[in-house]
Parts: sequence; structure tokens; C-alpha cells
Amino acid sequence: MAAPLGPFCDGLPLARPHHDGSERYVSSPCPALGDTVSLWVRAPSGSARRVWVRWVRDGEPCFREARIDRRGPAETWWRVDLEVTNPVTPYRFLLWDEERPCWLTAEGVVPWDVPDATDFRLVTFDPPPAWVADAVFYQVVPDRFASSGAARTWPSWARPARWEDPVERGGRAAMTQLYGGDLMGIEERVDHLEGLGVNALYLTPFFPAESNHRYNASTFDRVDPFLGGDEALARLVRALHARGIRVIGDLTLNHCGSTHEWFLRAQADPGSVEAAFFHRRKEGWAYWLGVVTLPKFDHRSPELRRRLYDGPDSVAARWLRPPFDLDGWRIDVANMTGRFGEVDLTREVARTVRRTIREVKPDAYLVAEHAHDASSDLLGDGWDGTMSYAGFTRPLWCWLAGPGARQVDFLGRPAGVPRLPGWAAARTIDLFRSAVPWRSWVHSLTLLGSHDTARWRTVAGSRERALVGFGVLLTFPGVPCLLYGDEVGLEGVDNEDARRPMPWDPGRWDLTTYQVVRDLVRLRRDRPALRHGGFRWVHTGDDTLAYLRESREERLLVLAARAPHEPVRIPALALGLRGGAQHLAGGPDLRPGGDGTVALPSDGPALHVWELP
Amino acid sequence: MAAPLGPFCDGLPLARPHHDGSERYVSSPCPALGDTVSLWVRAPSGSARRVWVRWVRDGEPCFREARIDRRGPAETWWRVDLEVTNPVTPYRFLLWDEERPCWLTAEGVVPWDVPDATDFRLVTFDPPPAWVADAVFYQVVPDRFASSGAARTWPSWARPARWEDPVERGGRAAMTQLYGGDLMGIEERVDHLEGLGVNALYLTPFFPAESNHRYNASTFDRVDPFLGGDEALARLVRALHARGIRVIGDLTLNHCGSTHEWFLRAQADPGSVEAAFFHRRKEGWAYWLGVVTLPKFDHRSPELRRRLYDGPDSVAARWLRPPFDLDGWRIDVANMTGRFGEVDLTREVARTVRRTIREVKPDAYLVAEHAHDASSDLLGDGWDGTMSYAGFTRPLWCWLAGPGARQVDFLGRPAGVPRLPGWAAARTIDLFRSAVPWRSWVHSLTLLGSHDTARWRTVAGSRERALVGFGVLLTFPGVPCLLYGDEVGLEGVDNEDARRPMPWDPGRWDLTTYQVVRDLVRLRRDRPALRHGGFRWVHTGDDTLAYLRESREERLLVLAARAPHEPVRIPALALGLRGGAQHLAGGPDLRPGGDGTVALPSDGPALHVWELP
Repeated sequence: MAAPLGPFCDGLPLARPHHDGSERYVSSPCPALGDTVSLWVRAPSGSARRVWVRWVRDGEPCFREARIDRRGPAETWWRVDLEVTNPVTPYRFLLWDEERPCWLTAEGVVPWDVPDATDFRLVTFDPPPAWVADAVFYQVVPDRFASSGAARTWPSWARPARWEDPVERGGRAAMTQLYGGDLMGIEERVDHLEGLGVNALYLTPFFPAESNHRYNASTFDRVDPFLGGDEALARLVRALHARGIRVIGDLTLNHCGSTHEWFLRAQADPGSVEAAFFHRRKEGWAYWLGVVTLPKFDHRSPELRRRLYDGPDSVAARWLRPPFDLDGWRIDVANMTGRFGEVDLTREVARTVRRTIREVKPDAYLVAEHAHDASSDLLGDGWDGTMSYAGFTRPLWCWLAGPGARQVDFLGRPAGVPRLPGWAAARTIDLFRSAVPWRSWVHSLTLLGSHDTARWRTVAGSRERALVGFGVLLTFPGVPCLLYGDEVGLEGVDNEDARRPMPWDPGRWDLTTYQVVRDLVRLRRDRPALRHGGFRWVHTGDDTLAYLRESREERLLVLAARAPHEPVRIPALALGLRGGAQHLAGGPDLRPGGDGTVALPSDGPALHVWELP
Repeated sequence: MAAPLGPFCDGLPLARPHHDGSERYVSSPCPALGDTVSLWVRAPSGSARRVWVRWVRDGEPCFREARIDRRGPAETWWRVDLEVTNPVTPYRFLLWDEERPCWLTAEGVVPWDVPDATDFRLVTFDPPPAWVADAVFYQVVPDRFASSGAARTWPSWARPARWEDPVERGGRAAMTQLYGGDLMGIEERVDHLEGLGVNALYLTPFFPAESNHRYNASTFDRVDPFLGGDEALARLVRALHARGIRVIGDLTLNHCGSTHEWFLRAQADPGSVEAAFFHRRKEGWAYWLGVVTLPKFDHRSPELRRRLYDGPDSVAARWLRPPFDLDGWRIDVANMTGRFGEVDLTREVARTVRRTIREVKPDAYLVAEHAHDASSDLLGDGWDGTMSYAGFTRPLWCWLAGPGARQVDFLGRPAGVPRLPGWAAARTIDLFRSAVPWRSWVHSLTLLGSHDTARWRTVAGSRERALVGFGVLLTFPGVPCLLYGDEVGLEGVDNEDARRPMPWDPGRWDLTTYQVVRDLVRLRRDRPALRHGGFRWVHTGDDTLAYLRESREERLLVLAARAPHEPVRIPALALGLRGGAQHLAGGPDLRPGGDGTVALPSDGPALHVWELP
């Protein structure tokens, strides 16, 4: 690559022009059709002579020239207005220094032509609920979080376990081992959630099912009596709401259990309406991934849609109304829901669920399980976001995983967890970020692990690297989601082992981890830039990732390091620094040196956050 | 970027694993649902320890391990079979050397995770017609190619011009200047087409219209009498078919002329069925890009669809039947057709046109005008391909344009034609190639210019660079399309100037250009690897692009150079060369040196093609 590519592409990330979907760059993140939206681009002063926006209107690219809005000592802000005429408007910028024009897309700056997949996007569909961007989620598996000890009859399929028993791994035992956590137990531990500072709960399924994870529902009509029944759920949600904590449930629309009342009827009577609820193959019923306890729903049935999610009497609607009053749903296996052979109804499913729940509860949140590229499912008219396994979990694992993670399942991909330099992990983050509208990205759940993965602490291999991960999680765009027990250093080598019962004896907690995670949750909840700010790389090295979070109110600089490293030097002017910047956790403040640069600390593993003036 | 990325990503392109959609790598390019397809990957021997295919089935990524199929001296071929269960199956490969796994996608090799947009794809929709891959197209604008001199009444709107008059540029005069070329004139020049060796004609519109370009049709029911009427078209097609030359027409489904009989009725009677054929805005009828002679069709009208393209009585069907017998359509403004505000029916339009024309003529070709990213319109169920402006014309211009091209309109993009190194142009080609299924890419029209752009010769700025462009055009994947007059060195600084009348005095021809282009057309028609082979970069430098075209029968190496350059040295073993390779046009043969490399000639501008044993 001998030829230089010009001022926009060479050098530090901060020397490149920037735009993102946040409030400093877009006047209206969720415009209506017909609205005019103002867009701003910042570029190092003197680098761009002319700037145009290119947007796609009715399928055709159009150009409009931007004007200089204001000039700072180091950079110039350009502004251009455009009318929103289509539900989704892809746009990007053309910058020209009279040497070579460059594109500024959501992926970054490129001097050659690229397809539209990485364009910024304006989306006119009704916006995600306002509370979501301010949320820190905490995921709870009801069987494993806390037991009230209430007297109950244990189901016949279950193998009762004591709270301190090790989890069974592999085969049927892993499904039938029942610890007896219940919803009353969660209610008794609301203080723990409040103490940690989280303000949203993601509850895995509570419907009756013949397994400890309950993803094979026998009915969607009631709460499992073993968890305390309908009344316990209503009480739990009331208790959480009283503390300002939202709650979302977990709904599987892709399949149900083979014990489900609808499937029993379908099997008993081929002429029943329920017989059309399920896909068939030549050889009989179709099951999810071939698992014969999980018959796959056929969404071509209008009656299935009506019962599950189409309209106010559906399952999706009912649980959002009092007395249950859930605040939304996580949709299990959303990437496959509605997809089977020639049938692809996923977009219609997502749009219908969204319409139904918003009619019942205008600020209900809808988030999809999705572990690879969700861009075709995230145009903004269906799911508000996804679980960001592909664009967050995986790159963070690749960067921060410890040596032992070679043996860990990499979310279904063979060959274990690869170890990548920070700049390569940043590439993955940028590619997945740029594939979806900004608002879908920032309303997706960021997570370091879940009930479906190994525990983050085990993947990281050390407390120190694990804490760097939590630091990134809580300072990054997206809605952070912790798995119960992450905050006390719980371990687990795979998804089954990850579901160890929550230890309630603080003597078994990693108190350092608890304090750091609690402080990070507080930091996020205190700092608008972390919840609503833009995102911009400052430096992406092998061992370091540094980024800016900037809102209208404040500017924060985050440095994450996986190991001790050469000091990173940043031109103070590019950071907008004339004086110093204060470390938010008592670490070293930043102060420009005589050479006009700021040296970031070289320790690691470490996470630093500074407030820039 | 300090950290090395491992054996798959560093070094020469030929040192990387390879797969594409051609016959050496995919057992069945157009499988049916339920078929099993074999896939092959080649990788330098010793580089990969294990290989998996990852494909997306019903929305979920699945993995299957490949096995070694055969080993050569320099490389190993891996094979894996997969069942096709969805209409579109995205797939890629995971290669592992026990150090770091890498993805092999249609864009290339990457060690970090990437979204699915660049996956290879298997597509089950009915395939493009077999003749298209063997075609070399020649585009003719009827008013400007040849006149029979037949006595006619000139239309009242027209300003008659003599054949040797300069073209008018800008404003109404550019539309009304009529030279009087006609279909009989084309028929008289069929020898010219046959002599050049082309075997397909793309004819711009022949419907009556009040302009010389005729994109503003007054009716779709008959051929413009001024061009000779229906009988002249039928005779022309018969004459061409007799020489083995196919013919496609040019149909605008996005708009018609304001003089169109349907629009006149819509205006006269708001209650007429035709009133629903056209989009409206608050302020009145909607026009294409605001041009008030071009009312925009509203494809929500079933009657409009029936008349235009839905079913055997439609316009799209009728002209493919005898006596007219056209072999397909180029669809004008396809990127906007069916798109307007909240309405997006483009995919339905494309699928319906395709179904209709295939019912009338099973091997009819359907190609869409599209000048930016067409990936969402090119899944394989609608258009067979597009005009490859974005993925071919633009990058070739950026690499080969002369200094004067700074003033040339870059297909609507501000800031002129940028000048890029070859490797950067190759990036654009790779990105647009990887965004669509292989079969859509290779059935798209590659072109260096058209009636909508400046002339390639003018953009190139010299005969020598222009000829390098023609060389790439005729050795590249895709269906080459020349604009009438390109072969004799016709010039033109913009789209209007590009439509100069064809000079028929050979004294005004650039005979060198004519001979080289004719030889290149013959080369393409003689060599199956150029029409059906795979595509693989051998070298992408600043001034050089070298690539392999490999079919089951033969292997060709192409070197294109825009200027004299440092000699490119390629390891002979990586090329599969033990002895020498013969130059196909009398240039220097290739012979490995003592160091095991082959030195490619360093002259330029130049195009070389060798046959590898």
C-alpha cells in the first residue's frame, strides 16, 4: 500500500472527520416522515475544503453541500439539513480536500467507493422507549437466583438439588436438576439489586415447563406454580417498580415444549386449529434444531399469531397489563422465529409483536436474542435491539480472554476463543455497529456473558481482566446487562456451569469485584455521556482501547488496557484539552506536556475514565 | 497494526485460501431447495489444519467440518457438502492453523468477526439464461447509430440535425436535436456488429416519445413510426437472430412521458383507472426527480401492473413474443422503480417482471439500471443482474482515468473522478462483488461507459489507457457491454456529448482501437475461462492489477498496467507453474527464474494475457 491516502485516512482516529447518530450530530434521532433533520460533521480544521451529504431518496443517491456551522481551534463543524421522505434513509458524507475525496460512513473514513451497508441511517419508525437508554439490566434465572424456601410439591420430572450442590453438566441431568429458586426469593433480594444500582431486571422464562430453564413452555397462560404462580409474579413486579426497577420477561415464539397444551392437541387431532401451529417435514413434526421436545411454531397460522402476539388478547400483550405489568420482552431465538425453509416471516413477527405490546404499554421494550449479524432484522420497525453477542461480547472476549479460554465454547463457533489485538476487536465492533441504525445499536443489550455462555470471569481468566471488561461494558454505548452473580465473581466454564446458584454468603463473594462493579454501575447512572453520548475511538492498539463518550453536557475519555503497555500519547488539541482533565476514580489526572501531547497511563490491566473540560 | 495476523492474511493474495461461486468451487451454481451442494476451498498446503463451512440455516449459523479432497504440490483442496434448505443460503469458511482462526468470505480473508453481508451465497431461484454468460453486448442509441435515409415526416417537436452536426448540450435542445437514425439503419449495419464479434445488442428505447432518447414514452404499444415502426423492429430482430445476435430492449417502469396516453387520461378524468397509475403529492402529480415531463408510476395499482408487466398481455411480455421476439429487457431507473415515500414495491416489481417474461420466453434476460449499491435488489429472485456502474465502471475510472477526468461528471457524484491506486480500486470491486450472489455478479453488465456517462476514451485521456480498460472489460467476470462507437475511439465529455452519431467513414476511425477491441472480443468469445471462470487476484499494486481466470478447461493470467512499473514477481509454485506460460497475443512468455519466481513484464499502459498449463 504505497500510495498515501490523504489527510482523512492517515494518522490518529481523532485526526479523521467524525459523525455518529448521537445528539451532537443529529438534531432528531427519531424523525417523522416529512421532517427536516440537521446533521453535523466535525473535521480537523483545514482538512476538508468542501463537504456534501449523500443520502438515498426513493432508491436514488442525492447530494447536498454542507456549510460551515462553527470553527474551533482544532476543528470545524459542518452542517447540512435534509428532508426525511422514506422510512429508512441511508446517508454518508463526501469530504474533499481538492486532492482526493473521501467517504465518511458509519464504519469510518474510506477513499474508495463502498456499498451502502455501512451508511448512517435515519429511521422514522416509532422510537424505542426512553427509559431503555438509562437502564442497567441484571439477568436472573429464576431457578438459580434465590429461593424463598416456601413449601411446594416438586415436579415429578425434577431432580431436586440443594443450593450448594454443583451443577450437573451435559445431557438430561443438566435440564432436570432443580434448585428451587422462586419469584418470592427474588422479591426477598430486591435490596441486593438496589444496592448494586441496577434498574432493570431481565427474567428468564417463568412459564410452566419440564426443565429448570423453562424454555420449553407447557403453557403461556400462567406462571409456574413452583415459582409461586401468577400472584408471586405480580407481587415481584410491584416490589421492583416500587424501587424504580423495570422488569422484562423472556418469551419464546420460535417453539414451545412438546408438553405444551397446543402441541398435545395438534398431535391428538390433525384437524384441530392447533395442528396448523406447527411446522411439519415429510417425516413428521419439525423440531427446533432437531430437539424432539421443542416443536417449531409455524407463523403462517393467523390463529397462532393471534394467540401469541397479534392483538390485545395475545400472550405478548397480556403479561404487560396489570396485575403483571411487565415492561417488555426478550424474545428467545428471535433470529430463527418465523424462518423455516421457504418461509421467512421474521420481519412480520417482529413488527406485529412490537405493535401489540406498544398498544398495551407504550414504553414496552422489545429485545431479540441474536448471536450473529442481525442487521436485516434491525431496521428499526421490529425489535428495538438485540443481545449484542456479535458486536460486543465476541470482540471483547477476543481481546480480553485469558489463556484458558482456548477451551471455552465461543458461542457455538469451533476452534475456541481466538486472541486478537485491540484494534482488530475494534474492527469487529465498528463493522457490526455500522450495519444497523445508531438507535438500534444503542438500544441493544451489551453483555459479557449470559445463561447461554461461559461466565465472563472464567473467560477473562483473572479478576483484573474481568474488571476491565466490566469497565468497558458500563462505559460503552448499548444497554449493559449483567448476569446474576457476575458482580461477586461467579465462575462457570460453559452455559450450564454458568447457571450455578447465586451464593448469598458474602464470605463467598469476591468483594473487590463487587465494589468495582457497583461503582461502575453508579458511574454509568450518574453520567449522561455514558448513557446518551456519542462514540469515537481515540486510540486502538494491541493492548489498549481508548474512546470518547460525548453528550451535550459532558465529555468523558475512557482508557481500557488489558496489560501494561507503552504509554499512548494523544495531541491535547485533538482532545480539546488546554488545561487538565480529572480522573473520575482518584487515578492520575491528565495534563498536556511541553510537546502538546497528553500521555495516558501505561498500567494494565486497567480502566481509566477522565472528564474532559 | 503491530501484531501479525497469521499465515492466512499476510503476504500475496495467492498465499491466501480461495473460494468463489464458479464451477471449480461449487458443484451446482443454481441448486434447487433440498439439493446437496459440494463446496471446495483451496488453501496453500500446510496453512490450514482444519476447515469448516459456516452457513445460515433458518436464520441460525451452523458449522460442518470439511475434509481434504486432494493435495497438490503447493495447495490443498478441501471439500464439504451442504443441504440447501432456504432460498438464499449465506455461507463462509472458518480456517484454523491452531494459532488463530480466520474467516474466508467473498470479500477475502479476515481474522476478526464480520457481519454476513460479505458471505458467499447459494441461491435457489431459477437461474439466469445460459446464453448471457457467453454474451458480449453492444449498446445502440437508435437515433445516433445509423440512418437508412428513408423518407419520413419529422416530428414537430424535433430539431432535425445532419449526421455530421455537433451534438447540442444542455437544456431542451439536447433532447430535441434529432439525427434521424432508425431501425432499418441498424439492420444495414449488422455486418459491423458481426465483424466486431459482438453477439448481443442492447437497444435503448424504441417507443414513440417527444425526445431523441425516447425515455419519456408516449405509448408502449408500438414502435416509433419515425424509427420504422413495428415492422422495422421485427425485421431487425430477425436479421440479428439470423447472425446469432440476441437483442434486448429498454423499458422504463418508473415513469412515462407526460404525453403518454395513460397520463393524458389520468389528467382528464380523476375517476379513470389511469388516475391510480401515478403517484401524487400534496401539490399535484409526482414527477421523477421533479422533471414535469416524467410522471412517476404508482405500482400499487393492479391494473398498471397488469398493463405493464404482470401477465402475458403486458408490455413486458408482448415484445418478447413474435413477431418482435426480443430476448429480454434492460429496465431503466430500476433502482427507483416502485419506491416512493413510504411505498417500496421494487422487489415485487422485479419478481413479477421476471415471472412474466420467463413464462413468455424461458431464456429472456432481465437487467436493471442501477448505479449504486444494488445488493438489496439482487438476491437472485428479480433482476438477473444490474449495470455494474458501482462495482466496475467507477473503480476502473478511478484507476485508469487521465488527468483531464477531474472535470468529468463522476456519475452524479460531486468532486470529479478521483485517481486511486489499483489496490484501492480492487477494494471497491471486491466490496461490491461480495455484496451480491456470484451469479448476480457474473450476469451483470460490465461497462466502461454508456449513453448516461462521458465516453470511456475521453475519461481515459489516451488511447493506451483506454485500451487497458477495454482489456479489463473483456477479461473480467460479468457480461461486457460496449457503447456503439467505443470500438472506433469515439469521444464525449458528458452523457449528451457521448451520444455523437456513429461515424461510418473508416477514415474517422481509430483503427488501432478497432483492431484491439475486435481482438479482445474474439479472445473473450474463444476462451471459456473468461466467460465462466473463477476470479482471483494475483497482485494488486498502484499501477498494476493481475488476476487469474480459471475454468475447468483452462487457466488464464491477466496483467493490466496503467503505467510502466516495477516488475511484479510471483512465486511460480503459487501460480501452479513449473514450465512456462504462453502469451496469447505474441508478447513475452512467462518462465520461472532461478529464484522460483516469475517476473511479469513491467511495461505500461499494457494488457497481457497468458495461458497457464
